[in-house]
Amino acid sequence: MKFCSSCSSPLISAIPTGDDRLRHICQRCGAIHYQNPKLIAGCIPVWSGKVLLCKRAIEPKLGFWTLPAGFMELGETVSEAACREAMEEANVDVQIGPISSMISLPAFSQVHVFFHATMHRDVFSPGLESLEVKLFEEKDIPWDEIAFETVKRTLRYYFADRLSGNFIFRQEDLTYPEG
Amino acid sequence: MKFCSSCSSPLISAIPTGDDRLRHICQRCGAIHYQNPKLIAGCIPVWSGKVLLCKRAIEPKLGFWTLPAGFMELGETVSEAACREAMEEANVDVQIGPISSMISLPAFSQVHVFFHATMHRDVFSPGLESLEVKLFEEKDIPWDEIAFETVKRTLRYYFADRLSGNFIFRQEDLTYPEG
Repeated sequence: MKFCSSCSSPLISAIPTGDDRLRHICQRCGAIHYQNPKLIAGCIPVWSGKVLLCKRAIEPKLGFWTLPAGFMELGETVSEAACREAMEEANVDVQIGPISSMISLPAFSQVHVFFHATMHRDVFSPGLESLEVKLFEEKDIPWDEIAFETVKRTLRYYFADRLSGNFIFRQEDLTYPEG
Repeated sequence: MKFCSSCSSPLISAIPTGDDRLRHICQRCGAIHYQNPKLIAGCIPVWSGKVLLCKRAIEPKLGFWTLPAGFMELGETVSEAACREAMEEANVDVQIGPISSMISLPAFSQVHVFFHATMHRDVFSPGLESLEVKLFEEKDIPWDEIAFETVKRTLRYYFADRLSGNFIFRQEDLTYPEG
C-alpha cells in the first residue's frame, strides 16, 4: 500500500494520535487506511456418509484436495458465504448446518470458519477453481494431499465426532505457519 | 476507493474475468482491490458474578454502554484481539474463556465475536475510548442504554445460560439494521 485510495497522494507509515501501531496515513488528506484480517468461510458437504472434496485448480496448493471455502464477501453472513462457496467451487446445493470450527491463523491474518452441511442432491461438478470434485468415504480421504491444515483438522474432528455421536464446535488457533 | 494504492492511477469498477461481482480494478497496473467484511472481537469480563461494561467516549453510540470489543488487527488470533480490546477500553486484565457468540451483520459487513472472560483482579479504569467502566449486577444492567444489538443479545444469552447452568455457543445472523 503506497498511495492513498481517496486522493492518490503518497502514504506514510506512522502511528495516529490515540493509536498504538503503525498505519498507512495520507499526508495530504489525512485518511488512515486500516488493514484487518480476512474471514474464510467453508463447509463439510455430506451425502450418504461421504464427504465432498474439491481438487484445487488454482494456487496455492494446486492439485491438492480441500473442502469448499473462500473469502467472505461484503454484505454476506458467514453461513451465506459458506453456501455460496460450495456452489462456486463444486456446483453443489447445500443446506448449511451448525458451525464446526473457527480457527485463527495469525501468521496469515486469516480466520477460517467451517460449517456442517447436507447436500440436497447427489449432484455436483467442478467449478472454475476446481479440477475435480468427488465424494469420499472416510477410509479414502487423501490425508497426505489435503491442501490446508485447517481443512485437515476440520475433517479429523468431523470423523471423530461422528464416531462418538457428539458433534463439538472447536474454536482454536493455528500459530505456526501452514505446511 | 478512487485510486490504486499500488500505482496511484484512477480505479474503475468492473467484473474481473472468472469473477461474478464488481471490484475496484486499476486500469494501469491491473491490481484488483478486494474489500471484505471485518471481524470485531470482544468479551464478557466477569468479577464475582458482575459484568464489566464500558460507557463509550466515541461515536457511534457515544454515552451508551458496551462490552469491551473492537476491530481485530493483523497478526492476531480472535481471542488475542478480544483480550487486547479489554485492556485498551477498560484497562482490565482478563483470561479469555470459551466463545459465547458469533453474530453476522451483513448490512454492516461485520462479524461480531464475543468470548466469556474472567477478570484476574478487581482492577479496571476507562481507556481512551471509554468515559466510564463499571461492574454491573444483572438487575442493574442498563438495557435501554446498551450501544449495540449484538452486545444486548450476548448479555441476554449470558444471563439466561448462567441461570440454566448450561452455557451455549450461538452462531447467528442479525439481518436488520441495528437500532
